[in-house]
Amino acid sequence: MKRILMLTTGGTIASEPTEEGLVPAMDGRLLAAYLNGLAAENQLQIENLYQLDSSNIQPEEWQGMARAVASRFQQYDGIVMTHGTDTMAYTASVLSFMLRNIPVPVVLTGSQLPIRHPLTDGVENLRCAFAMATSGRAGVFVAFDRKIILGTRAVKVRTTGFDAFESVNCPYAAMVDSTGLNLNEAVLQKPSGDFQLEDRLCDGVILIKLTPGLNPEIFDMLLQMQYKGIVIEAFGAGGLNFVRRDLISKLHKVVQSGIPVVVCSQCLYERSDFTIYQAGQKALESGVLQAYDMTTEAAVTKLMWALGQTNRPGEIRRIFETCYAGEVSLT
Amino acid sequence: MKRILMLTTGGTIASEPTEEGLVPAMDGRLLAAYLNGLAAENQLQIENLYQLDSSNIQPEEWQGMARAVASRFQQYDGIVMTHGTDTMAYTASVLSFMLRNIPVPVVLTGSQLPIRHPLTDGVENLRCAFAMATSGRAGVFVAFDRKIILGTRAVKVRTTGFDAFESVNCPYAAMVDSTGLNLNEAVLQKPSGDFQLEDRLCDGVILIKLTPGLNPEIFDMLLQMQYKGIVIEAFGAGGLNFVRRDLISKLHKVVQSGIPVVVCSQCLYERSDFTIYQAGQKALESGVLQAYDMTTEAAVTKLMWALGQTNRPGEIRRIFETCYAGEVSLT
Repeated sequence: MKRILMLTTGGTIASEPTEEGLVPAMDGRLLAAYLNGLAAENQLQIENLYQLDSSNIQPEEWQGMARAVASRFQQYDGIVMTHGTDTMAYTASVLSFMLRNIPVPVVLTGSQLPIRHPLTDGVENLRCAFAMATSGRAGVFVAFDRKIILGTRAVKVRTTGFDAFESVNCPYAAMVDSTGLNLNEAVLQKPSGDFQLEDRLCDGVILIKLTPGLNPEIFDMLLQMQYKGIVIEAFGAGGLNFVRRDLISKLHKVVQSGIPVVVCSQCLYERSDFTIYQAGQKALESGVLQAYDMTTEAAVTKLMWALGQTNRPGEIRRIFETCYAGEVSLT
Repeated sequence: MKRILMLTTGGTIASEPTEEGLVPAMDGRLLAAYLNGLAAENQLQIENLYQLDSSNIQPEEWQGMARAVASRFQQYDGIVMTHGTDTMAYTASVLSFMLRNIPVPVVLTGSQLPIRHPLTDGVENLRCAFAMATSGRAGVFVAFDRKIILGTRAVKVRTTGFDAFESVNCPYAAMVDSTGLNLNEAVLQKPSGDFQLEDRLCDGVILIKLTPGLNPEIFDMLLQMQYKGIVIEAFGAGGLNFVRRDLISKLHKVVQSGIPVVVCSQCLYERSDFTIYQAGQKALESGVLQAYDMTTEAAVTKLMWALGQTNRPGEIRRIFETCYAGEVSLT
């Protein structure tokens, strides 16, 4: 019998229909009622943290979640967290950084249909999350559609399909089939040291997804608005325009003013690589940081987390050249 | 024997190695030399428009391309345009709108490796583009990895894989296998009227991809900077935060000031739907326009094109509730 803590935060899984559309409303005990055997097999504790549509989950809630996990995990074998799907990938990424070396599984799950819906995917997702939470494997994960995804590699790629999440640039951490929970040892990580709650975050990070014709003056304005860090979704493997609208010179100025700029790709899959094209090489010379094969969700939350600890450019660079939770392949 | 016009614009396919990385350099005649039989079977005319990395292709080049096609298409059965992959999806989308009711195929292609590279995909892509250009079917397409994709549905999803492009929320327009070019009649469109060059574009459109914690004040600043239109990649099926950082009220103000706001999803696949959740319903009430199942590339370029014609909010709404080139499923 394993001791499992279930933290609820709202989301579709706990939603009820209202005149204004679906609204998160169900208590964790009602959710757990759908677990049947699994609840009885484990020693289950339930705590309701939030009742929010995940579009409303923001850095303040991330800190609340991280602190709730940090103060309780030693009493449990694993933690399940129910969460809306819309920002689950961001939450899973940021908790992977904040819960440094967490020694137990912290498994986020949710669903595309409310758990009360006759066709819900919520029961299946919750059961798979429980299976992973009892596995004893360290780390933050997303459980969805019978796949277990490393928290820093999850991306929501479908708005309504039950197969809403992909594991981007990384195999699944585990899969569930009729043989049970099949762990993928090549993906699972071991803590590299003692647990530390690193819950400081900087919310002054902005993401700019490039589109052709974007006026580089936007970056002057972002500096005026006191943003502390910028993530850019560049074209392809790291393309940035420099003809006529010279984004590369502008980013050079941003970097020189002490504001870190991380460049990832707007392509969902595969790594960015600035060394292939002239445009990318020019960008590297301007001092931007490469996100390599990180997801945008991981790049943005890692920068928020890094800037929570330091604003020294050299330190930020060192953090981005370190893999903390499987978020990046540096070579 | 078909009359084919090949317009070159640069890109990896035409790139040569330099000390600074790959740079577009090859003349169209050199590219055509790799076509072997296909060049001889067709009456081929070559015109070099640009020699640009596609990260540097911007609205001015789109207008140059549209005008080049508009002034020449009547002398040809089809047009092939070589283009870098990084912004090809944006170019294919915007040309689909600018070349209203184009009666011949305009087929964009390129490659992930230069055509001179021993493992290049450029020869295969060019051949498939030629096959589609001789098909007599109207419209703008992307030919890549033996698939022909409707211009408004193409998205670059992989930075380096030969299967770089996906047809998002729409089946392939055609596929090439050993039986030849297999057209998908359900996807192919017929012109709904006479050809018109509609080449006015507004480059004052900005894309904001939401991240949790984004300060809504950014929108005040965008208004100050005189942006004429805003596209938002919302969470999931259309989620926007309204707790603490009230994005929905802010967007309401933006819309009331006469600036159109189009909301699409940051999920790659499937449609946005504002009617499901409370957050989405609140957004609709604020007057934002839905992108339904449009790609971000199509939503951004359609707004640039719409604002090139009019800045009357009612007209912009009408344009976004009309499908011009297979870009949207409205029901």
